[in-house]
Amino acid sequence: MNPTAAAATEERLAAHRRRFDAAFEAYFTRLAATFDAPPHGRFTPECLQLLRELSLRGGKRLRVVLLYEAARLVSTDDGLPGLAEAALSVELLQTHLLVHDDIIDDSPVRRGGPTTYHAYRHAFPGHDRTALGLALLAGDLAAFLSLRVLLEADVPAALRQAMLEVQTRAATDTIAGQILDLERDFHDLPDEELLHTVTEYKSARYSILAPMRLGLLAAGEDLAPHDAHLRRYATLVGVCGQLRDDYLDLFGDDSALSKPPGGDLRAGRRTYALRAILARAGTADRAVVEAALGDPHCPPGTVERVRDIACRQGTDALLRADLRRYAEQAAAEAATWSGRWREEAVALFTHLPLRLAKGTG
Amino acid sequence: MNPTAAAATEERLAAHRRRFDAAFEAYFTRLAATFDAPPHGRFTPECLQLLRELSLRGGKRLRVVLLYEAARLVSTDDGLPGLAEAALSVELLQTHLLVHDDIIDDSPVRRGGPTTYHAYRHAFPGHDRTALGLALLAGDLAAFLSLRVLLEADVPAALRQAMLEVQTRAATDTIAGQILDLERDFHDLPDEELLHTVTEYKSARYSILAPMRLGLLAAGEDLAPHDAHLRRYATLVGVCGQLRDDYLDLFGDDSALSKPPGGDLRAGRRTYALRAILARAGTADRAVVEAALGDPHCPPGTVERVRDIACRQGTDALLRADLRRYAEQAAAEAATWSGRWREEAVALFTHLPLRLAKGTG
Repeated sequence: MNPTAAAATEERLAAHRRRFDAAFEAYFTRLAATFDAPPHGRFTPECLQLLRELSLRGGKRLRVVLLYEAARLVSTDDGLPGLAEAALSVELLQTHLLVHDDIIDDSPVRRGGPTTYHAYRHAFPGHDRTALGLALLAGDLAAFLSLRVLLEADVPAALRQAMLEVQTRAATDTIAGQILDLERDFHDLPDEELLHTVTEYKSARYSILAPMRLGLLAAGEDLAPHDAHLRRYATLVGVCGQLRDDYLDLFGDDSALSKPPGGDLRAGRRTYALRAILARAGTADRAVVEAALGDPHCPPGTVERVRDIACRQGTDALLRADLRRYAEQAAAEAATWSGRWREEAVALFTHLPLRLAKGTG
Repeated sequence: MNPTAAAATEERLAAHRRRFDAAFEAYFTRLAATFDAPPHGRFTPECLQLLRELSLRGGKRLRVVLLYEAARLVSTDDGLPGLAEAALSVELLQTHLLVHDDIIDDSPVRRGGPTTYHAYRHAFPGHDRTALGLALLAGDLAAFLSLRVLLEADVPAALRQAMLEVQTRAATDTIAGQILDLERDFHDLPDEELLHTVTEYKSARYSILAPMRLGLLAAGEDLAPHDAHLRRYATLVGVCGQLRDDYLDLFGDDSALSKPPGGDLRAGRRTYALRAILARAGTADRAVVEAALGDPHCPPGTVERVRDIACRQGTDALLRADLRRYAEQAAAEAATWSGRWREEAVALFTHLPLRLAKGTG
């Protein structure tokens, strides 16, 4: 992609983000005004406020971009009925997943701010059980809101039904993936195949496949003939995204991350990066990595040592090569859509994975 | 109600339970066979198995009874399309709520067996975070399954939409009620009005109102003209049920309960019963109750002392009188439905609250 085209793409993605962020803010304002909160409490409005804050600290909004651009594969109309509601649903489901994920991992920071769980712990010192309960309920609320927003969409019943099927299916797939993710860390050296399965269920389906399906549905497209193409693309982009996150968590520049580096190591997650290091480590190096894995107090110096081991092995370069290879495969898949769908959007889907693979050195 | 009529009613309720329990078991067997579980894991099948076990240890199935009998207000056909799916949805939502509630309360026992959270803690000794994560995800899964079962119902789109609206609305109301429930315990002596609001949001709407709405919807009834009647009945029966649970938790016969008595006291819940005792206590008695409230290690002897204080005050008799009064008001409300709906089912709704109020001495 030439510099002018690349700049045009960036502006297009930024426009999706801006429009969505304004709509998301308006959604939460409307929600606060219309939600049937019990008359005697201040905890429910506070819960809605915490969901709003986390949701609006949104970051890249890749899911929203995928949704709108999938519609553009078919139509130039960004105002197609159901598209705005689908975008809200996708990001509310994401909020649900983040709130619960941060309970599971006991993470203090998310998107550069406090997690909902830790915000509640801070608000209720000495009442950890209450904080846990409120965070859990906040996550539950976001889950049901993500479906209510679709139920309220003013679209034909068949489209609403299809969108609800996509989102509830995406949700249960993701939960199965999260369960497998917890199982993974009971393996000393999980197969790479297992990691791919985790990625497929835990992120590719709800982050890539579901938004694309929703966009195409809103544009009136029948999904069945495209299913294999969409799945292939979603899986490859999902692996890219996960490889990138895993890579950056260990090798990333501190300032570019919204959480401190080494989080996966401290949490004992046998990610693509840590699995690759373990698979190539001799006895001594392996002992260093294993000792740090799952130690929440593992100091920055030890994270540095694990990074050095990886660089000595060449695992960092290997991961970057893997990432580039998956991105190129995803781009190649999107390129085959030429002729089937609108060229401008096909070009964007071809460009996106390569863009995702950048910024890892 | 004469003894023959009462026996006929009991047989009718038992028949609803039997039919539903068989359908629920078949649902979980089908789910295990068709759920898209990741190929490399045993944790997802185990999660489905735990949801199955908790769900099938079902107890009274009052919600299912209300659903089927609400349909009978209009039709004698228990096989109306959508009714079976609505029953599954109602009980899957209940499973979702129980799993998460038992995390919030850290309860070991539910329905006479281990809670999902404690089952996981037992399965993963020394991995409390994993157990918490798996239990949380199991609850999330049940939430989405409760909606998927409606999405898969072979009924007209408008009915499916209406049922989904009822269930998602019931879910968000319940969450708001649970949040208020946690807020309640930060009040030294919450207003009775606050307790009624908790009951309304946390239990009446999803346990009474939603099943009745779903049953009427399946029977083709337009809900709008009946809304005020249904709400009044649901609120009164909801208060009955909560008063009864709160009473039994303190005064109940050990053997009749599926959990040890005094649980509310130990958990620091300012329930109808404990609030009434505190409101009537002098300084010395109040100190005894306050010291026990929220002490997880409060011994049976102290629970006994609190019970003695209540009996000395006459609070136990007062609670029983309250319960009976609400039950009679609910029965009176149902009696006004005569002429509007089928007499046989109206009689059952008139009888149900009085039956609920029994067994408290």
